[in-house]
Amino acid sequence: MQKRIMWINPVGSTGFDQPVQELLETAKQRDTCIDVVSLSKGPSHLTYMYYEAYVLNELLDLILRAEEEDYDAAVIGCFYDVGLWEAREITDRLVVTAPCESSLHLAATLGKRIAIMVGENKWIPKMSDNVLTYGFREPVVSFKSVNLGVHDFQKDPQETRNRLTQLAKEAVEKEMAEVIILGCTAQFGFYKVLQEKLGVPVLEAVMTPVKYAEYLIELRNLFGWNHSKAYAYKSPPKEEIALWKPKD
Amino acid sequence: MQKRIMWINPVGSTGFDQPVQELLETAKQRDTCIDVVSLSKGPSHLTYMYYEAYVLNELLDLILRAEEEDYDAAVIGCFYDVGLWEAREITDRLVVTAPCESSLHLAATLGKRIAIMVGENKWIPKMSDNVLTYGFREPVVSFKSVNLGVHDFQKDPQETRNRLTQLAKEAVEKEMAEVIILGCTAQFGFYKVLQEKLGVPVLEAVMTPVKYAEYLIELRNLFGWNHSKAYAYKSPPKEEIALWKPKD
Amino acid sequence: MQKRIMWINPVGSTGFDQPVQELLETAKQRDTCIDVVSLSKGPSHLTYMYYEAYVLNELLDLILRAEEEDYDAAVIGCFYDVGLWEAREITDRLVVTAPCESSLHLAATLGKRIAIMVGENKWIPKMSDNVLTYGFREPVVSFKSVNLGVHDFQKDPQETRNRLTQLAKEAVEKEMAEVIILGCTAQFGFYKVLQEKLGVPVLEAVMTPVKYAEYLIELRNLFGWNHSKAYAYKSPPKEEIALWKPKD
Amino acid sequence: MQKRIMWINPVGSTGFDQPVQELLETAKQRDTCIDVVSLSKGPSHLTYMYYEAYVLNELLDLILRAEEEDYDAAVIGCFYDVGLWEAREITDRLVVTAPCESSLHLAATLGKRIAIMVGENKWIPKMSDNVLTYGFREPVVSFKSVNLGVHDFQKDPQETRNRLTQLAKEAVEKEMAEVIILGCTAQFGFYKVLQEKLGVPVLEAVMTPVKYAEYLIELRNLFGWNHSKAYAYKSPPKEEIALWKPKD
Amino acid sequence: MQKRIMWINPVGSTGFDQPVQELLETAKQRDTCIDVVSLSKGPSHLTYMYYEAYVLNELLDLILRAEEEDYDAAVIGCFYDVGLWEAREITDRLVVTAPCESSLHLAATLGKRIAIMVGENKWIPKMSDNVLTYGFREPVVSFKSVNLGVHDFQKDPQETRNRLTQLAKEAVEKEMAEVIILGCTAQFGFYKVLQEKLGVPVLEAVMTPVKYAEYLIELRNLFGWNHSKAYAYKSPPKEEIALWKPKD
Amino acid sequence: MQKRIMWINPVGSTGFDQPVQELLETAKQRDTCIDVVSLSKGPSHLTYMYYEAYVLNELLDLILRAEEEDYDAAVIGCFYDVGLWEAREITDRLVVTAPCESSLHLAATLGKRIAIMVGENKWIPKMSDNVLTYGFREPVVSFKSVNLGVHDFQKDPQETRNRLTQLAKEAVEKEMAEVIILGCTAQFGFYKVLQEKLGVPVLEAVMTPVKYAEYLIELRNLFGWNHSKAYAYKSPPKEEIALWKPKD
Repeated sequence: MQKRIMWINPVGSTGFDQPVQELLETAKQRDTCIDVVSLSKGPSHLTYMYYEAYVLNELLDLILRAEEEDYDAAVIGCFYDVGLWEAREITDRLVVTAPCESSLHLAATLGKRIAIMVGENKWIPKMSDNVLTYGFREPVVSFKSVNLGVHDFQKDPQETRNRLTQLAKEAVEKEMAEVIILGCTAQFGFYKVLQEKLGVPVLEAVMTPVKYAEYLIELRNLFGWNHSKAYAYKSPPKEEIALWKPKD
Repeated sequence: MQKRIMWINPVGSTGFDQPVQELLETAKQRDTCIDVVSLSKGPSHLTYMYYEAYVLNELLDLILRAEEEDYDAAVIGCFYDVGLWEAREITDRLVVTAPCESSLHLAATLGKRIAIMVGENKWIPKMSDNVLTYGFREPVVSFKSVNLGVHDFQKDPQETRNRLTQLAKEAVEKEMAEVIILGCTAQFGFYKVLQEKLGVPVLEAVMTPVKYAEYLIELRNLFGWNHSKAYAYKSPPKEEIALWKPKD
Repeated sequence: MQKRIMWINPVGSTGFDQPVQELLETAKQRDTCIDVVSLSKGPSHLTYMYYEAYVLNELLDLILRAEEEDYDAAVIGCFYDVGLWEAREITDRLVVTAPCESSLHLAATLGKRIAIMVGENKWIPKMSDNVLTYGFREPVVSFKSVNLGVHDFQKDPQETRNRLTQLAKEAVEKEMAEVIILGCTAQFGFYKVLQEKLGVPVLEAVMTPVKYAEYLIELRNLFGWNHSKAYAYKSPPKEEIALWKPKD
Repeated sequence: MQKRIMWINPVGSTGFDQPVQELLETAKQRDTCIDVVSLSKGPSHLTYMYYEAYVLNELLDLILRAEEEDYDAAVIGCFYDVGLWEAREITDRLVVTAPCESSLHLAATLGKRIAIMVGENKWIPKMSDNVLTYGFREPVVSFKSVNLGVHDFQKDPQETRNRLTQLAKEAVEKEMAEVIILGCTAQFGFYKVLQEKLGVPVLEAVMTPVKYAEYLIELRNLFGWNHSKAYAYKSPPKEEIALWKPKD
Repeated sequence: MQKRIMWINPVGSTGFDQPVQELLETAKQRDTCIDVVSLSKGPSHLTYMYYEAYVLNELLDLILRAEEEDYDAAVIGCFYDVGLWEAREITDRLVVTAPCESSLHLAATLGKRIAIMVGENKWIPKMSDNVLTYGFREPVVSFKSVNLGVHDFQKDPQETRNRLTQLAKEAVEKEMAEVIILGCTAQFGFYKVLQEKLGVPVLEAVMTPVKYAEYLIELRNLFGWNHSKAYAYKSPPKEEIALWKPKD
Repeated sequence: MQKRIMWINPVGSTGFDQPVQELLETAKQRDTCIDVVSLSKGPSHLTYMYYEAYVLNELLDLILRAEEEDYDAAVIGCFYDVGLWEAREITDRLVVTAPCESSLHLAATLGKRIAIMVGENKWIPKMSDNVLTYGFREPVVSFKSVNLGVHDFQKDPQETRNRLTQLAKEAVEKEMAEVIILGCTAQFGFYKVLQEKLGVPVLEAVMTPVKYAEYLIELRNLFGWNHSKAYAYKSPPKEEIALWKPKD
């Protein structure tokens, strides 16, 4: 049974689209079909909450489109998990996943203490709040920042790898982290190098939400299990939206 | 020294503007000047996270305008505190407050156990997450829902009052709440009736963020204390925004 | 790629083996092969910690056999998740899952507040400790007991269903549970009836660990992600075991 | 409308009275009238819990006098907030504030992570307990001790400043503190120097409780909001006190 | 080896002295010698924090006397544990115990969920703070109030017993309490009746601190283990006290 | 009144039996009679959870025997407290104690912040889970590992002492630990040396459970207080056990 997944890069640039597509082709199930899309406008990274806020509307329009076009799942391609809850609220059948949440559930299954590698200290307060509301405050033992902006990651790839390696090693040895999550996507595939070097699972946050989506789609199809519409994700009435929302 | 405050009703209807203005005129300091504004479009209430997401952009544009026009503070007039953190991130000098956060700090000073009255159960998960990230999970001993949508509050005012009275009484007697926060604004002024009936402080969430704003403005002016720009509220560079943000 | 899973009923009776096998045949992936086994001796239920302790050795011997016989995963078929951590400790490649842990990760993805239905109050303290150490103390808002022993579930199936329905309804309405986990397996398939009646996901704890195992096997095969051997699950040296463990 | 505030230095020496009075004159509102008083006997600092216990009676007598003499508020001038709850218990109309509580509410509004500078390690356990019961355990990320007794602060002012600067810098950079609270009053006015150097708000705990008192007095006068008398601060009956308390 | 224990009723009436003495004679070890003392003045109960504050000085003087007169331990006879930490701070060798702390350690050893019976709701906020700072917030599942003041307990003994019985039963059945602590001392000996009726341990808070004191004295004598003087209980220098404290 | 205590070394070697016996002779009460036993087979240490699981059955058989042979208490001689809860479940009258639980209650009475010294990092996750379920997550401020296996402790006794001394010093000075627990038994008696050097209580985990057992036996005998059989420790019916358990 085919699984159609829309991966949304919630930024106004297409630079990540092709590399993400290529990476996911190697990771997806045979019957899965992944479409990578990005936004028509907006910043090229989401370091600031203001940037997140800016992209939210077009992102949610894409989510609505994904449901209309019968996608099985949408994946929000940003470690802030921007719009994850809103997306679950406005859809009925669509599975929605995001990197941070899906990585945390997996990491907590693989080990008891988790460290998250991020780009800049600025990311940490928002991500900490996410970790807290997801319920993973206890197992997340540290955030480690490489002090590089999203677009600096590729400038000196070797330096980036060195910093990640050193910080992850420190997390494992000093803070007894048992699982590492790469909250910032350095070079695709680097997770494997690090994983072998450190001897602990290193989760690449591009794959985790897609595989989690495949898993959740299967459960939905088999057992009818999907995001609960009881309270948090209860949908607004479509008729009410029609009354106030301008037609595009 | 004059304090200029912009109160933003983050909804696409002007219905609340005049009553809020009138109420605040009775509550503000003599030198405070309050301008109540609302949005040019959008829903008339924010029950759903999708609605919040929708209004966020125009709301933040207003916040930016408030800073440009030398307002001292902006108040976000919704108990979800929508956009509070984003607003603090994109401004340098502006004080930004919102009903839930300001009510909680005050309530925790007035008593040890707090109950929050809301309109519908649907509001509770999002507000609980706010309470959690604000750090008030412990003192907030219950949310109580009157099971009325925002626009049902005025339909049968007496019934609304009855329900609020009964639930607040229950919170005080059974859950030992010492302070009540009206998370939903029933009839302005009703807080006083309830307060006298129950013998505990009943906080009206229209006044709390405005008075907190006046207080914070004074501290900023005297001592230079304002929202820290170190990490969580670190601003995006204006030049970077200019590169991607369409001119209106 | 074939997935071989050993389902272990950690009890000294074969009564559950066939029904579980039949149920799982309808739930598994096409390429998955499931072998249901039980123990050679021991109690027919694990209500008591002493019973859990009793079966632990043979259970772990089965886990070791599963690894030796190249199973991809072992599932421990008891909602106490008996031996889950020990099993991960003594294996290198085997994925190990169990009902409570796998249901909780799924449930927390589907909603923010979780209720767990159990058979007897006696189960709750041990399960609460598990919930606590798994890190789900916050989202689990209640345990509800039908007050029936494991073997009483089938005595009056209608009464069992009635009690479950009433308690789950109460959890949804009074405690705002958004997801129900059936910690006790009433009649297979009943989850679907309840799910439709309540309108929230009702997780059947027989399927959850098997589907989670399939998911984890796939991740292990693709990315090398498996239980971390750094600290908690660090294996004892086989040579050392040989020194003290009697040959069977 | 005039606000009359009694600042109580709960020590048996008058050494702090004049400097505090002078400092507060520069910080208070125009209509506020501040009287600084200290005790007739007792230690000159409250490092030890025993010292706190000793001054409690006279302190509470002053609180009672403040209420009788129609003060609007009393401020307890010690970062241990000694007697804060007792003071609220025995008064009906008086607003009572103290340095630690008022600084924490403000700090949590200005940033998400707070560091508190103290004089000696000995202070930390008691202050930690206060932080815990106030509900700020999460946002307070560290206590930092300069290892100086209350009366050593003035011995080598430059050394004191150096230590404070270094520890505060460390808190901001290593523990990502966004707001600093000076739990020990070094040299009045030094907060401003530090604030400019570090670029984060540095709260001076002499001003915070007075400004908070002014704010609370205004709320009380306008809306009748004051310390709840429901449970924690329920007053003892005056007639009962008369039965056992010796007349002075 | 003889153990000398001073039991302090921290009230200005001698009414409890003899019954406590008689009760403890039946509970103490053979070599233990217990002296029951009360204060020279002050209220006859400590329901209010103000009353606690009032008795603190004379209570601590008694503690100092106990150390001087070579008592092995002092027990503070009030379930608020008034002055417990101060008492440990000012002594070097003396063991100091109190009802709430000692009952909680014992109760947490006997079962996982604890309910505390109190006289009035007014007691609960202060006791909750104690429970929190002692670290027992999790296992204490409820406080139950019989709604009787300290001196009403004896007015209608049967009614008191009835209420206690009903509330304790409710705690065991509804909140799954496994251990009951009588935070209010009804009729000495009633714990046994209740214990038999409910089938769970019912701790009488008069015996618990005395037996804990005997235990701690023995540990101190054998191994030198006593209250740590490192930080929280570090003593003020006697010479410094002499400088400010009036001679009696 | 005589107290009969069975100390169980839950390992398949007798090497610890005599030294433990000798040590306890110096620590026990005059009327206490201690029998030290170990297992007929199994590993000589319990570093791994698998080893714990292995010994559990014979350990619990010994517990049952202790109850049958009218011992007053059984002590489980391993800092993992292996089988503590199971042991309490299957007995009615027997007091059961273990090193970690008994040390924690004592330590929390002696100071507010506790550090635990362990042999290897591998021990920490399991012990952390115990600390969490016992409710001591807050006061335990650190685990410190000397990086020595159980049987390496005696290889270079001086090196072991040096490491312990250095780590304990660090815990006291940097993490403000007020009490040290020796989770690994180095050289019996070394606790005293360390205690004198550091000036804080250093708890030796061989003595703590025995003394706690003596204390609990006395309470049981006097007041009928013993492990609650209400829920967590509710015993399995002996007749049911007889149905499935093979006779030895």
